[in-house]
This record gives sequence, structure tokens and C-alpha cells, in this order.
Amino acid sequence: MHELGVVYRNIVRANREAADRLGDFGSATVHEAMGRLGLLKPYMRPIYAGAQVSGTAVTVLLHPGDNWMLHVAAEQIRDGDIVVAAITADCTDGYFGDLLATSFKARGARALIIDAGVRDVKMLTEMSFPVWSKAISSKGTIKATVGSVNVPVVCAGALITPGDVIVADDDGVVCVPASRAAEMAEAAAAREANEGAKRAKLAAGVLGLDMYGMREPLARAGLRYVD
Amino acid sequence: MHELGVVYRNIVRANREAADRLGDFGSATVHEAMGRLGLLKPYMRPIYAGAQVSGTAVTVLLHPGDNWMLHVAAEQIRDGDIVVAAITADCTDGYFGDLLATSFKARGARALIIDAGVRDVKMLTEMSFPVWSKAISSKGTIKATVGSVNVPVVCAGALITPGDVIVADDDGVVCVPASRAAEMAEAAAAREANEGAKRAKLAAGVLGLDMYGMREPLARAGLRYVD
Amino acid sequence: MHELGVVYRNIVRANREAADRLGDFGSATVHEAMGRLGLLKPYMRPIYAGAQVSGTAVTVLLHPGDNWMLHVAAEQIRDGDIVVAAITADCTDGYFGDLLATSFKARGARALIIDAGVRDVKMLTEMSFPVWSKAISSKGTIKATVGSVNVPVVCAGALITPGDVIVADDDGVVCVPASRAAEMAEAAAAREANEGAKRAKLAAGVLGLDMYGMREPLARAGLRYVD
Amino acid sequence: MHELGVVYRNIVRANREAADRLGDFGSATVHEAMGRLGLLKPYMRPIYAGAQVSGTAVTVLLHPGDNWMLHVAAEQIRDGDIVVAAITADCTDGYFGDLLATSFKARGARALIIDAGVRDVKMLTEMSFPVWSKAISSKGTIKATVGSVNVPVVCAGALITPGDVIVADDDGVVCVPASRAAEMAEAAAAREANEGAKRAKLAAGVLGLDMYGMREPLARAGLRYVD
Amino acid sequence: MHELGVVYRNIVRANREAADRLGDFGSATVHEAMGRLGLLKPYMRPIYAGAQVSGTAVTVLLHPGDNWMLHVAAEQIRDGDIVVAAITADCTDGYFGDLLATSFKARGARALIIDAGVRDVKMLTEMSFPVWSKAISSKGTIKATVGSVNVPVVCAGALITPGDVIVADDDGVVCVPASRAAEMAEAAAAREANEGAKRAKLAAGVLGLDMYGMREPLARAGLRYVD
Amino acid sequence: MHELGVVYRNIVRANREAADRLGDFGSATVHEAMGRLGLLKPYMRPIYAGAQVSGTAVTVLLHPGDNWMLHVAAEQIRDGDIVVAAITADCTDGYFGDLLATSFKARGARALIIDAGVRDVKMLTEMSFPVWSKAISSKGTIKATVGSVNVPVVCAGALITPGDVIVADDDGVVCVPASRAAEMAEAAAAREANEGAKRAKLAAGVLGLDMYGMREPLARAGLRYVD
Repeated sequence: MHELGVVYRNIVRANREAADRLGDFGSATVHEAMGRLGLLKPYMRPIYAGAQVSGTAVTVLLHPGDNWMLHVAAEQIRDGDIVVAAITADCTDGYFGDLLATSFKARGARALIIDAGVRDVKMLTEMSFPVWSKAISSKGTIKATVGSVNVPVVCAGALITPGDVIVADDDGVVCVPASRAAEMAEAAAAREANEGAKRAKLAAGVLGLDMYGMREPLARAGLRYVD
Repeated sequence: MHELGVVYRNIVRANREAADRLGDFGSATVHEAMGRLGLLKPYMRPIYAGAQVSGTAVTVLLHPGDNWMLHVAAEQIRDGDIVVAAITADCTDGYFGDLLATSFKARGARALIIDAGVRDVKMLTEMSFPVWSKAISSKGTIKATVGSVNVPVVCAGALITPGDVIVADDDGVVCVPASRAAEMAEAAAAREANEGAKRAKLAAGVLGLDMYGMREPLARAGLRYVD
Repeated sequence: MHELGVVYRNIVRANREAADRLGDFGSATVHEAMGRLGLLKPYMRPIYAGAQVSGTAVTVLLHPGDNWMLHVAAEQIRDGDIVVAAITADCTDGYFGDLLATSFKARGARALIIDAGVRDVKMLTEMSFPVWSKAISSKGTIKATVGSVNVPVVCAGALITPGDVIVADDDGVVCVPASRAAEMAEAAAAREANEGAKRAKLAAGVLGLDMYGMREPLARAGLRYVD
Repeated sequence: MHELGVVYRNIVRANREAADRLGDFGSATVHEAMGRLGLLKPYMRPIYAGAQVSGTAVTVLLHPGDNWMLHVAAEQIRDGDIVVAAITADCTDGYFGDLLATSFKARGARALIIDAGVRDVKMLTEMSFPVWSKAISSKGTIKATVGSVNVPVVCAGALITPGDVIVADDDGVVCVPASRAAEMAEAAAAREANEGAKRAKLAAGVLGLDMYGMREPLARAGLRYVD
Repeated sequence: MHELGVVYRNIVRANREAADRLGDFGSATVHEAMGRLGLLKPYMRPIYAGAQVSGTAVTVLLHPGDNWMLHVAAEQIRDGDIVVAAITADCTDGYFGDLLATSFKARGARALIIDAGVRDVKMLTEMSFPVWSKAISSKGTIKATVGSVNVPVVCAGALITPGDVIVADDDGVVCVPASRAAEMAEAAAAREANEGAKRAKLAAGVLGLDMYGMREPLARAGLRYVD
Repeated sequence: MHELGVVYRNIVRANREAADRLGDFGSATVHEAMGRLGLLKPYMRPIYAGAQVSGTAVTVLLHPGDNWMLHVAAEQIRDGDIVVAAITADCTDGYFGDLLATSFKARGARALIIDAGVRDVKMLTEMSFPVWSKAISSKGTIKATVGSVNVPVVCAGALITPGDVIVADDDGVVCVPASRAAEMAEAAAAREANEGAKRAKLAAGVLGLDMYGMREPLARAGLRYVD
């Protein structure tokens, strides 16, 4: 947060297998597994529906209206990374378009998470390069001021440390600390394990009230029925 | 509004035929027929494009971050209902996902209208279970506090009484009081009756100015033309 | 801005060829060519993805909740125009639907840009009549008060003079003054000329840092690398 | 909600004494006594600090940009009333200024609660006529369309029935149903009864943890301390 | 709007006497006299209550996060001017503080209207230098990019031409075109002429319904009373 | 961020003298000294004008609508601390009122910074206990779920580590890392040192253009003057 003008080249990335596995569960399940922490604010929306990705965070801290550091960040990308871009003040400018996407993709990036705007969304969609952003805007940016790469950043209200696992889909974006990636993948798997059985019961008309045994605690909490 | 901890089991639903018929007209025509009343605020958006539904309201009053009462509401659903969920304070959490949707659908619900967030939107889309909501969010909810089912609620700025007809499509969500459903279906039909003829004229290049006889009232209102 | 109750019939439209050519470049490229001016605020969003249009502005100034002047504007549309609608105060009502779209299209309009709401979006999508708006809303409007047609207006924070070129796509909406349309088309073409070569290099893994010669200025600006 | 063009002259007002007494407790205490229901959304702010009032609601339903019905409402005001104004769509126009305030005050009104804008705030402050509103705006309104007086309205997200008690102060605005006014005054008094003793203890350095016996439930909920 | 990097030194200011006179009426009365045009959006709020000013506009177009041109604007200020600052994209940074206020005041400026943020508000209040702004923020700005001075700008949704009259008070900010200043001062005076008599009548309990002869048109519009 | 249910009792607070000294400079000067980092979003506003404080951060992480952990935090307060409260999701409820303020004050707290709502603002003002918050709301909270005390939190978009220095005044709230407090106090002092001389020059009519030597760089950046 408190450091400008620095690029950290060596970061500790989360275990690749755990990172990939977390992506299969999706953001809602992972967020639950995390004890309902780590979620970016829901104003972060995908530029097209249907993308579901996970990867390790390369972070970048940018100034409003200035995308210079995205070029610096490109060099730090390794295969399987997701770039997470934070801005030092609120901004909706279009920091990122098809040229940078081409570069990021060539370097191995799977997605961009940016607390600002993006443009060329039609081409990004055709390229299948997903972006979660606060805005879509044609407004271009300058290249005048240095920020930082791979420092901890606050993006859309969540603290992201370089190397953390990012899980993003139509429901939103979640950050899992690198040190807890494997444990969280286990927890998410446990959550999902019996969802199929539950879904079948509910589809057959069984009520959650009965399946989860809620009638008694609801009555104890004072719920009453009136005919 | 002013009652917590109660479930009303017997509500008077609007006439089924009128409720179904209102859905064919769509929210804009019904809203006009209503004298431009009954519309929920336009921040209520469908999670996918193209759904058009109507049904009778089962209402539920929830607390911020707590979806317990949605399970209680599920039991009160009858075929052809639409669940309308209001929250006692602003909240964007994801109250509803694919498991509850499976349950609601099995009980006969046609849609959910919720003044909060929803998740699992990819699965809900695949299930063709439409939701109109204020937000999409992975954020889960707890089950700790009782609210009410089938009490009058304020949802997105509109008063909804249990049994009212809800009409929802890509343009928004409208509520028609149960007692006026048949009358409103007639009024909506009357509005639509001559739309085809109008459309043909306009498509042929006839101006609304002439078709509606607006030139004289515009001149009287002071409109002048400058060459 | 400061004139109500007037319709200017003779406006100077931008050169047609330049106007059409600008549309091919899209809003982001044109906005860059303009020196990053002329963009409408990014809350203006298309009602469906994929439309990309340009045309000459017919402007209309409306009152909140009153769409009367859209009928007056219809008569002033010529082939290749885009109607730009501004409101004298914030409003999200649905000013425009399928009947007006039928009329506008018959008169030769290519699109509507409106700093308010629109409805019948499913039909507008089926008709392929694109609209960029602030909101989607079933709420209808009255026809009671006169505004103006073809006066300069402020729409979504940008000054639009009748006859200006409007360029709109998934990234947003840009206005180019009529007197500068040809010059801006040249500037946009120049910007695009070498994008293909750049894209190929970036796709091959060349970094923007090297392609644009950024390493030296970044170092001079104080950027340092930490291993 | 669903009725336009009607003025109800005879409404059942809450008991005057209970209404007055509720005002002494302030909105926070009354809101707690109500089980945390009845609060208008917190965007409703007083035009000046320090006012604390209560009274019985005379409701008015207005159209966007049209304040005609405020004049109709004036005639229905009795001594001790508070006018509650709802709008059929979002609007920030200045519906109310010093002339209407003079009239309302002469009729016995104690305040205005309006889900829209107000103007002449300097004069209203000098007159000590408090207003809670969504906005302050010079924008005037027209007098063209009829709404209703003394119908139930949704104002800032809360259902207000004519005759209900309104309690408003620097913390916000709460509505108490007329039928529960006396009971709620009792409940509020009970809440306040031992606040003095609590305040003295806390001022002396006693912790809420001990005063409220929270240590044990916190430990049971899993809270742990790390040195 | 469409010009960067230019300072116009000779602008035609509105008649001084008319500009001063407009200030006495306040923004609401002037806005009415203007036919309800010329108002800046109501998010523009004074940093302290009670200021009421008018003056001739010196305009400045700034980039987000860059206040360089405010220093350029200072030189163009003449006694009786009000500086109106527009930004090319949304920004809440604190562009202006006590040092610039000292400079502006020494040059004869009466106020600043800025569609962005301001800081040092405690000192500005002590200096009695009023500012109407969108935000208050400690965030400083850089001095790197040129904008323009005394070009037409869009500020908070209104078009401001250099030399126009700005009227600002607790209710908001209105712009009167220089060419219409004298006429508008007359219109405002006419509006105010009989307000005193009206106020006296209303204070005596006469209803607006009777004073303005509204009962008959309301009945014609369909208003009915229910006992 | 990623830890719930823990209270850290031993935190390293910034040097007291440096913390106190930073308060004298105010948030704008400290924010500049920090290289324009560390600012909380400008929606954080004081509940009354004129307070200017600094202190060391005791942090607390709360759930939406649940203020239980504020009681836990009270015990960790030492003389000269400022409590910084973050919420795991957006919430405007009134978490804090006069009783908690009495307790916090008795424990030595100088202020509360909360990314949510507060109530009893009239009493807090009378007690001179300043609060910077996102909202003011009567809405009370429950005591049901454990969060954490003295973990790093994201509050209004800024990362706050326990023991950091908080500087807050009418312009906003800034966070200075504990390890940099002394250095930043020096930097702020250096910034202020020659402000008096500058202010005197500007008050005498000297232009910033000349005092800062801006004319030449502006010309080089392309600024031109038109008579």
C-alpha cells in the first residue's frame, strides 16, 4: 500500500494445483469456504458472461488516468497469473484494451481484475480474455507517473497480496491468501461434496425446512404461523 | 411492514387467469394501464435477458445478510407464484443460489424478485429460473434471525401485498393489486389493441405528430419553428 | 442550452463520408484522436452488445418525465442521423419504446443516445435499433411541455451541437464537432495504421516496455526493481 | 399506493399524547423499541442540525417535478401534524420553499418529510421549520398533475399510513403505526429508564464486556485472545 | 469544450450591475426567472452554510487529478469574477486549498464553483471564501497537463460560457447567459415583487388553494374529496 | 483481513510524539507528505465540523449489522488511540452511539473512524467525541457474530494496520504506517515551513505562475494565449 516506484520481481505464488482447483468451485463456494471473507465489492462485474477462472495474483498499483505500470506489470506475468490492478483514487477510465490484452495473454495471464475501467470490450470478448472491472469506458489514459508492481494492494475493498489466488466468475471475485490455498480447496471440496444429494432432494420437493432441520430452531426463535 | 416473526399461510391470490394474461402484455404496457403506478425502482434488473413472467406474490421480509426466511417462504409457494423478497435495510449479499432455486422451482415458483443480491447466476440461467435483483454477489448469508412471510412489504420502493400480481420482463417489474388484476388485464388489452395499426403507419413514415394530432397542441403550447 | 420551445429545421450536418468513416474506428480510437475530449459519461450503456454506429446529431431537449419532443424530433431526422436526447433534470423514465423506434427508423435514424431511460428493449433488440441510455425502465412519460429540437444540449456531461458526429459502440459514446470530422477521421486512421504490427509483436511476446522504449523513462522517473 | 386523484379528509390520527412523548425519545430509541422496523432510508437528512420533532402523518403522493398536491395537502393539516411527501419516481427537484413553509406552519404543521428536494433552506432555517429530505435543489416544479392526499405511501423505503406517528431528529426518521403509538412510547421509556445508570458506569471505565456479561458468550462463540 | 491548451484573455463579461443584482435574488428565484434552465446538478454543495454570491464566470478546464490550470486561471480573474472549474472526467480530488484561495481572493474572485473536490475547508471558511463543490478531499493534485481557460465548459451538467453570470447560495448554483443578465434581473425582480404580500396571507392561514385559485382547475383535473 | 475471531492484545503503536505532531498538520498536509497515499475515500465525513485529531489505530473488523466487537475493542483502547472500524460488507447501520462513546472516551479514545453508520450524533457532538463515518442512521445493530480486533483491516479503501497513525479533520482521514510516523512528521513540517511566506506573497497579488516559475513549463507544454 504505502510504497510507490518499486517492482518486486520475486514473489511467492500459491501452489499451482490448489490455485487451479479453487477455480473449479467458483467464487461463491470459495467465499463460503473462506468464512465469508476475501470478496471484492460486487460492483466488480465481468465484461462478458460465462467466464470462470482462477490464478495467482500479480498486483499493480496505478494512478488515476495513468496506465503506465500495466506495461511494467506485463513483464512480471508468468503462466497462470491473473493481474490485479488497484488505483490510488476512484477512476473509471479505460486503462486496458486489446493491445495490452494481447500482450498479457502472450505472457500467460488468464484475466485482469481492475478497480477502474476497460475498453475494446468487443475485441476482448472475441479474444476470450476475461476482465472484471468497475466500468467500461472509451476514455484513454496517459503514461506519466510510476506506481508499483507486486506490492500488497487494496482492490475493490479487498486486500490482495502478490501470489494470492484469485477466483472469478459471473458471481464476482474472491481472493484466497497463498498460504491458505490448499486448505481452502479442501474446504470448498467438502462443501460441494453433498450438494448433489441436496439438490436431488430439493428437486423432489423436499423442503429445506425439513432437510436442514430448521423447524425447531425457527419455533424457538419465535416464528409463528397464522392460518 | 410492521410485523416480524409471522407466517401467514392463507393469502388471497389474484385470479389466476388475469395474472397469466397480464404477463403477456409485459411490464411497460401493464404499468401504463395502471396509470403509471406500481413500478419497482429501475435498479431491479434481470440476471439474464429475455425472461418475461407473471405470477402471484408470496412475500418475504428478511434481515440484512440473513436468508433464513427464504426457506420458510418455500413452503408457502404454490404453483404460479413469484416470491418477492424485501430486506429491512440496504444489502447486496447473495441471498439466493441454485439450491434454493431448485427448491422454489419444485414448489411451483416462476421467479424471484429480490431487493438484494443473488448468486450462482450461471446455473440459474441454465435452469431458466429468472431473478430480478439489485445486485449479483458471491457473498453468502447466515440463518439467525426470523422475519416474516406473506406480510405486506416494501420492495424496491413499491408496496407489495401478498397475492398481488407481479409482471416482470427486460424492462422491469410491476405490481398489480390482486383486486384490480382483471380490470388491468382489460385495460392493457385495450392499450395493445391498436398498436399494430399504429406501428404499420409509423413504419410507413407517417409521423406521430400527424397520427396523434400533436401539431395544433404543440403550437398552442408555444412551439415555434426556425428555418 | 438556454432556449425552450424552438425547433431549428436547418442545421449544418458534418460531412457524411467523414461521419461514416469515424464509425469504423469505434469510440475509443476516435476519443484518442480527439485528444481525449468529447466522451459522454461511462454510465451511458448500450441496450444490447455488439452495435457500432456513427451518424450526425439531431438534438432534443426534454423535460423530466415528458417525451413529447421526441415526436417533434422525428420529423427533423434525415437518413444517417442519430438522435441525442438531453433532459433538463435527472430522470430514469422510459422515454422511448418500440413505436417511436419504428418511426425513427422509418425516418432514417441509426440510433438513439438518451440521458434517461428506455423501454421495450427486447423489441428494440429484435429490430436492431441500438440505444445508449442511462437506464432501462417501464415507466412511461407524459406529453405536456415543450422543449427544443436542434439546440446545443449537454447530454451525459458532454456538449452536443446539432450536426456533430456521434460515434457509439460497446465502449461508449463520443461526440466529434462537425467542423473537425474530416480531420479526426484522418487522425483516427493514423492511430490505427500501425496497430496491426504492434499487435503482432505483442502477440509474439515482445513487451510494451521494449516496443515503446519505456525502460529508460521509467528509470528516470525513479522506478526501481527489487529481486 | 395504488390510487391517484383522491383526498381523504378524515383520517384516524394516533393519540396526541403518545405521539408527543415519542418525540422526546428520538428516532434511535423509538426505532429500537419498534424491533428495528419503520426507519426511512438514511439518505433522508435534516436541512439543519438540532431539530427533534414528532407528529401525526398527513401523507401526500406527488408526481416527479410537480408540487401541486402540496397545496392540497396544506388544507388537511391539523395542529401537530407532519407532512410526509412521496414521489411516484425518483426526483431531486425543490418541491418546497419558504412560501409553502409559511402556509404549513400557519396550519399547524411541525415539519416536512419529503423523498425529493427542498429549497430556500436558509429561510426555512431562520423560520425554524425543519425538513428532512433527499436533496437540496433550486429546481422549481410545475402544477399540472393530480396525485393524492392521505393515502398510504412509500416514502424513502418505508410504508407510511395517514395518522401514523413520525419521529425525526439528527439521526433520521422513524414511522410508528398509529395503533402502536402508546405501546411504543412505553417500550421506548423502558429502554431509556436505565440508560443513565449505564452511562455513569461506562463513564467510570466499566467495560460493556462486563456490564452486559458478554465475556462468556463471546468465548462460546469462539473468540480468542492472543498476547 | 473541444479545445485544449488555450487561454482566452479577452472575454465579454455580463453587465456588472445586472450580475450583482441577480445575486440578491438567490439561485431559486433566478432559476425560476430563467424558465427553469441553467441549474447545475444538485450534488454541488457549499462548503459552509449561508454564503450567497454572484459574479461573472472565468472558466477553466482541468484534467483529473491535475490543478495546474487553476494557477493559469488566477491571472485572468478580475474583480467580481467567480471561477468555474470543469474536469474532463469524474474526479473527487482536492484541487483547491487555502493558498489558491488566498491568490484568487487577492485577484478579486468572489467564489469557486468546481465539479470536483476541495480541501482546507476549515481555513476557507475562516477566510469567508465560499466554494461549491462535488466533494471535500485531502487528496492533492499534480501539475503536469495543460487544459484551457475561458473556453465554454460543461460543469455539473450545465454549459457555462466565459462571462456568464453565476448565482450561488445554499440552494445551489445557477448560470445566466451574459446576454440575458439584465432581462433576467428584471424577471427575477418581478417574481419577488409580490412575494411579501403572498407570505403575509399564507402566514394568516389563507390557503394557496384559494390564493392561487386552484380549486377549480384541480376539480377539472379530476381531484375528488372523500370524507 | 483474513482472520476472524481473534483479539490481538499487544500491538506496536507508533511513537506517541510523532503521532501527536502529525495531527497538528492536518490530513491534507500529511497526505501530501506521504506521496499522496494512505487516504481513506472521501465519503468518510465528520459528524460535526471543526474536529482535528490524530492517534494510534486500534482496529476492529465487524459484520454487517452487528456491533458486538466494538465492546471487545473498547477493552483494548489505550490513551491516545483512535478506533478504526471496518465492515465485511457494505452497511450503513448505526453501529455506535452515546453509550459506546462514553465508554470509548473513558478508556482514552480520541475518535472513531467507521466505514458504516453512527447515531446519537447530537449527543456525540455535545460530548465532543468526533466520528468520521459513511452514514448517519438510527438503525441499531445486533450482537451475534464475532469478528476480530487489532488485525489489519481495509477501511474505506485504505489498509490500516494496528498501531498506525490516523490523522483526521474536516478534509478527511489519512493513515500513516507506524514505522514511518516520525519521518512523515518531518516531511509534513518541511512542507509547512514556507507556507506562511507563500501565503503572504499570494495575498499581495503575486501570481502562482510567477512564484512557482510555471510560465516557462506551461509554454513548453504547449499552452498559448489568445487576445
